[in-house]
Amino acid sequence: MDYLKAKILSDGVVKKGNVLKVDSFLNHQMDVRLYNEIGKEFYRLFGDCNVTKILTIEASGIGIACVTAQSFNYCPVVFAKKSKTSNVSDSVYTSQVESFTHGNVNTVIVSKEYIKPEDRILIIDDFLANGAALTGLIDIVNQAGATVVGAGIVIEKGFQDGGKKLREKGYRIESLAIIDSMNDETGEIVFRD
Amino acid sequence: MDYLKAKILSDGVVKKGNVLKVDSFLNHQMDVRLYNEIGKEFYRLFGDCNVTKILTIEASGIGIACVTAQSFNYCPVVFAKKSKTSNVSDSVYTSQVESFTHGNVNTVIVSKEYIKPEDRILIIDDFLANGAALTGLIDIVNQAGATVVGAGIVIEKGFQDGGKKLREKGYRIESLAIIDSMNDETGEIVFRD
Repeated sequence: MDYLKAKILSDGVVKKGNVLKVDSFLNHQMDVRLYNEIGKEFYRLFGDCNVTKILTIEASGIGIACVTAQSFNYCPVVFAKKSKTSNVSDSVYTSQVESFTHGNVNTVIVSKEYIKPEDRILIIDDFLANGAALTGLIDIVNQAGATVVGAGIVIEKGFQDGGKKLREKGYRIESLAIIDSMNDETGEIVFRD
Repeated sequence: MDYLKAKILSDGVVKKGNVLKVDSFLNHQMDVRLYNEIGKEFYRLFGDCNVTKILTIEASGIGIACVTAQSFNYCPVVFAKKSKTSNVSDSVYTSQVESFTHGNVNTVIVSKEYIKPEDRILIIDDFLANGAALTGLIDIVNQAGATVVGAGIVIEKGFQDGGKKLREKGYRIESLAIIDSMNDETGEIVFRD
């Protein structure tokens, strides 16, 4: 994904606290042409895995997941909803996800109707850092007795340990750009080869 | 959009309190093939309006907006973010949106970087009922000094007055299915011709 890396270098902004601002093309304003390239790359990686459904989490994963589904023969996409309340019904799977950005804990919810034991789930998200969201989504798929085929991530912060921990547990995580270091003073971004 | 109406009749569920549950294909699990048809229909309606950007609101508008953008020569999509805090920076446009479903008020936010006075904005959303969300999005476009080309809505609850009020103000609102009445006892759904 040279195009993605070039876009990160040209339009991404490194902020204090290891924040990478990519909201001009990835998670506030969205470059759907880039999303198409991302979707095709996820298909190249997971196209032979008999994916039956794509799972993502609101909000910024939704667009990427929908465009990606077109490459996977228009398989259904389900997005996990974030809820402030833990007062949820029996008809949903839930998991607790801590947000380090917002300093709170969300209950993440998926209706039991939409993940079945026979499903082979590809998880899609825009970012992987400490892995909290991805761990919550995997937890939900496991509760449903379905199979996690793997996770397709657009940008992984390789200097945080979410990806490492989940790969050590045996999950296949494919990140299209892995950042090994960022410098908010110089703006430098170093990708993993 | 006969296909959309058929889908609403076959898979939608009418609940008490004039709630139409369409989360099996529109706003929790998502049918991207349907989204493609929706996107093409929005292009048929607004394709000659020189749209430069699509604006939507998180979460369930995002997928529809991204797929629709493909028909509009991959124009950028911006989604308004919902924030619980009114403590926002000078760099964003904000509007207050009351949610009748959740019984609260959200501050809706769009970065000033992503709507410019020369933009011709098509607003996309999944539902139009009382018009609170759409009014907030129009307010933001107006703050930016940009032009609202119109709004493309998937399902309008025609028995609530949001669409009527906004059309009376001169906005072009195109809803692909307008429901004139629903009955939660019989499950009947009556579309406007």
